Amino acid sequence: MKKYNIAILGATGAVGQEMLKVLQERNFPVNNLKLLASKRSAGTVIEFNGKEYTIEETKEDSFENIDIVLCAAENDVSEKFTPIAVKAGAIVVDNSSAFRMREDVPLVIPEVNAEDVKNHNGIIANPNCSTTIALTAVNELNKYGKIKRMIVSTFQAVSGAGINGIKELEQQVKDISSGKEAKINTFQHQIAYNVIPQIGSFDEEGYSQEEMKLQIEGRKILHNPDLKVNCTCVRVPVYRSHSESITLETEKEITVEKAKELLSKAPGVKLIDDLDNSMYPMPLYASDQDLIYVGRVRKDISSENSLVLWCCGDQVRKGAATNAVQIAEVLVKENLV
Amino acid sequence: MKKYNIAILGATGAVGQEMLKVLQERNFPVNNLKLLASKRSAGTVIEFNGKEYTIEETKEDSFENIDIVLCAAENDVSEKFTPIAVKAGAIVVDNSSAFRMREDVPLVIPEVNAEDVKNHNGIIANPNCSTTIALTAVNELNKYGKIKRMIVSTFQAVSGAGINGIKELEQQVKDISSGKEAKINTFQHQIAYNVIPQIGSFDEEGYSQEEMKLQIEGRKILHNPDLKVNCTCVRVPVYRSHSESITLETEKEITVEKAKELLSKAPGVKLIDDLDNSMYPMPLYASDQDLIYVGRVRKDISSENSLVLWCCGDQVRKGAATNAVQIAEVLVKENLV
Repeated sequence: MKKYNIAILGATGAVGQEMLKVLQERNFPVNNLKLLASKRSAGTVIEFNGKEYTIEETKEDSFENIDIVLCAAENDVSEKFTPIAVKAGAIVVDNSSAFRMREDVPLVIPEVNAEDVKNHNGIIANPNCSTTIALTAVNELNKYGKIKRMIVSTFQAVSGAGINGIKELEQQVKDISSGKEAKINTFQHQIAYNVIPQIGSFDEEGYSQEEMKLQIEGRKILHNPDLKVNCTCVRVPVYRSHSESITLETEKEITVEKAKELLSKAPGVKLIDDLDNSMYPMPLYASDQDLIYVGRVRKDISSENSLVLWCCGDQVRKGAATNAVQIAEVLVKENLV
Repeated sequence: MKKYNIAILGATGAVGQEMLKVLQERNFPVNNLKLLASKRSAGTVIEFNGKEYTIEETKEDSFENIDIVLCAAENDVSEKFTPIAVKAGAIVVDNSSAFRMREDVPLVIPEVNAEDVKNHNGIIANPNCSTTIALTAVNELNKYGKIKRMIVSTFQAVSGAGINGIKELEQQVKDISSGKEAKINTFQHQIAYNVIPQIGSFDEEGYSQEEMKLQIEGRKILHNPDLKVNCTCVRVPVYRSHSESITLETEKEITVEKAKELLSKAPGVKLIDDLDNSMYPMPLYASDQDLIYVGRVRKDISSENSLVLWCCGDQVRKGAATNAVQIAEVLVKENLV
């Protein structure tokens, strides 16, 4: 079996670390592995498949002989190095939002639009985490009934803001427990025992960046330029996994029975919907795995051709690292690399 | 000024205790005060306006010479004693859900439908806390544009489940901090660092009791039998104050400017909507006061004649105790007692 030279750009961050775990778990055919990060992290030793690797500083010549770059870096780093990597002959699967909306860059959730990978010109973008979770959840419903409109409220974990988000919640809980004042650094306000209806900055219409992604990226991923989404993104004091409350209006009616049947067979989805036993998706139990949990499926009693559901998914895994590795798997399977 | 004999039924609970605070704060004209609770709590001494009162066990003869009963008891206790109190000549303002939907019982949020108090037959019901918070928030918008449909996701505090809810979150955080397993008693699942999409039991359509109240009670309070509401109620690890993400479709268009103008003057409402400075309602800062904080007001980009907003309110105060005392104030003001 052919093996590939892989570079992880941003290998020391939460998503980069998870990419390493996912590559191992899924037995991705790795030949050489290059772990790239900032100068500050260079020299750190990381184990992968029983072998030790040393983090290298990302430089312009870091991408020679690399087949696939999994980029888990921030936008500015990706903007700088992705074109360099492509020029060196690598294909970049980029988790930043830098290239997502570029016309020549496919934006891909493999369960939803794997075929778009074929049209890549060196870069394939990984969608926003809340977008990936929501669209993986509703994909089979969309295929059956075509979604016209979604109304979404999210309950997003602190790890969406990286390791600093986790540390901030931990420290605030600790400080409050010992009667101290909670210090605020990463989030706009105290997150412990609070919820914050802001993720990213706001546009002129009053929507946050995060709130607009579901519509903008959703239209591209679903090839539906008429898709309409109204989203409210809220940070909650949960460590990991995002939850989303979704109302979806479809062109064709989908009965609850049909929806549950479709969801029970949907790739990447686990239907958890046993209300008599209080079984439904929750972030605490959706973490550290790759499926999007979907439940509370019911008819929208306020409208025709409309369903309500609730979903949870690990935004570091399926929302980022796993989705990127799955895209790399499509590249391998389709002989595109 | 005329003063009234007041009894608080369920005086030792979270809402009963808050009723005492609110009566004092608002200088309600109290003549005699009778504090009623279960046999277990009888004998406890409580201070009110600098005087000590002893909790008495609620009995059939507890309501002689009482003008107004503020009932903060559970449904079964209210069902037993409310008719007895009414027979003894008292007017009962009942916070339980026992009588809310009875045709001869007004269901009242004073800012919204104070005039309904006049039609009482001895009982006036206090609405569900999430209903009171949402309808106080949108009342002026409804008066202007008539709400047809609401799509709501709630973020509800643990104190909605009373003192046991608060204790459970405290204990779970403590146990998890010291490496112990979180014990689950009050909620269906661990609430610390989790969110639970269940409040109350589920009906055959898959909606929880709490989720249906906003439509059922909302229709009665707004005198709009055609109001349609699709609600998802979620418990979050917040100690106090509920938050709600609301999309509302109206018959007549309401521009964002008009909505903000209406909200800035709405009784019982405080508009907090300064996105440049990350100012919007949050539960941590909406607690221990009586206003419903409203913000994130914006056009619904997914539909015509539709707005999106976010609100927070203290469900023990305006969601329960304060609203009950306000109803008593209407009784006094309108010479109905």
